[in-house]
This record gives sequence, C-alpha cells and structure tokens, in this order.
Amino acid sequence: MAKMSSPTETERCIESLIAVFQKYAGKDGNKTNLSKTEFLSFMNTELAAFTKSQKDAGVLDRMMKRLDVNSDGQLDFQEFLNLIGGLAVACHESLTSSRKFI
Amino acid sequence: MAKMSSPTETERCIESLIAVFQKYAGKDGNKTNLSKTEFLSFMNTELAAFTKSQKDAGVLDRMMKRLDVNSDGQLDFQEFLNLIGGLAVACHESLTSSRKFI
Repeated sequence: MAKMSSPTETERCIESLIAVFQKYAGKDGNKTNLSKTEFLSFMNTELAAFTKSQKDAGVLDRMMKRLDVNSDGQLDFQEFLNLIGGLAVACHESLTSSRKFI
Repeated sequence: MAKMSSPTETERCIESLIAVFQKYAGKDGNKTNLSKTEFLSFMNTELAAFTKSQKDAGVLDRMMKRLDVNSDGQLDFQEFLNLIGGLAVACHESLTSSRKFI
C-alpha cells in the first residue's frame, strides 16, 4: 500500500496477516496455499503458546481438516483467515465473559 | 494473554483486532457491538485511506448492510472480522495478481 502517512493499527494488521501467510505458504511448493507441513510450522511458531497448551495431540489435524473447507489438503488465504478469525473470536469471548465477574 | 515471552506477530494482530474493535464499540451504548455511527467512525479513522478512495458516497452504507448478517443494525465482533477478512483478501489478491506482470 503506497501511502505518505504511516499505516493505522488496522492497516498494519491487514499487512501483517498477508505477510505472515506468504512467509509460511512460501516455504515449499505452491506459494498461494499452506500445505499441512506449512500449517504445522505456522502453528508451532506463530501460535506456539496456543499449540503447546493443547493436551490432545490430534487437535492440529482436526483443525486443518475443519479449516480446509474445499478439502484440497491445503489452506488458501481465506481459509487461513478463518483460523485467525476463530481464534480472535474465542479470545474476545473469553475476555468479555471473564470481565462479567470482575 | 499472560505470557512470559513477547507475543508473535500473529498474536499481536489478534490482540490488536480485539483492542480496535473494543475501542470503537465502546464509544456509545452497547459495548459489544459497533453501531452505524461507530462503524463510520472506525472506517473514517482506521481505514481512512480506503474510505477516502471510494468515489461512491453510498459505499459505506452498502458495506454496513452486507456485513450486518443478522440485520440487527449493528456489527458484532464476528461481523467486524468479516470486514477485516474481506479487505485482507482483496489486498492479497491485488498483490498476487500484480506480481504476475512483473
């Protein structure tokens, strides 16, 4: 985005989400999709705190399957955003529900 | 999110999206939704470059209507994320399609 002023927080987020997707999608083969290996690499690096907190070893497999809406064994950018959105909603709900008890 | 290590870029983005939603949703009335006024305030501040580039004055009205899936006249966090996702996908597609010609 070519602009004179510095980006707002929301613009920075949009740029970051694109950059992080391209970083992991570019690790092998098709650069416009996350393969299962690239998805695992993303989850174990960018969302390591979440991933390590999961006691069930099959959770990433199930997440990949649920996110892969068109069942092509890969995640495109829209499918990747559904993951980010799902985590953000869970985070937001946990914050707003805990506030009710304060 | 209480953690010892500094957040990753993806975690920072998730936190930022929640914070920016809460900032604008908290401006008046119901703090868990963006009213039309709050949505316009968000668009004119956080996404001013996009908003100013729209030649059609009715575009924000139509965006609000399309995003408001449950037609309650407000945007909840999930509906807000659909806006961010839609913009990110449009941005990503514009970047990847322009690269084909370089």
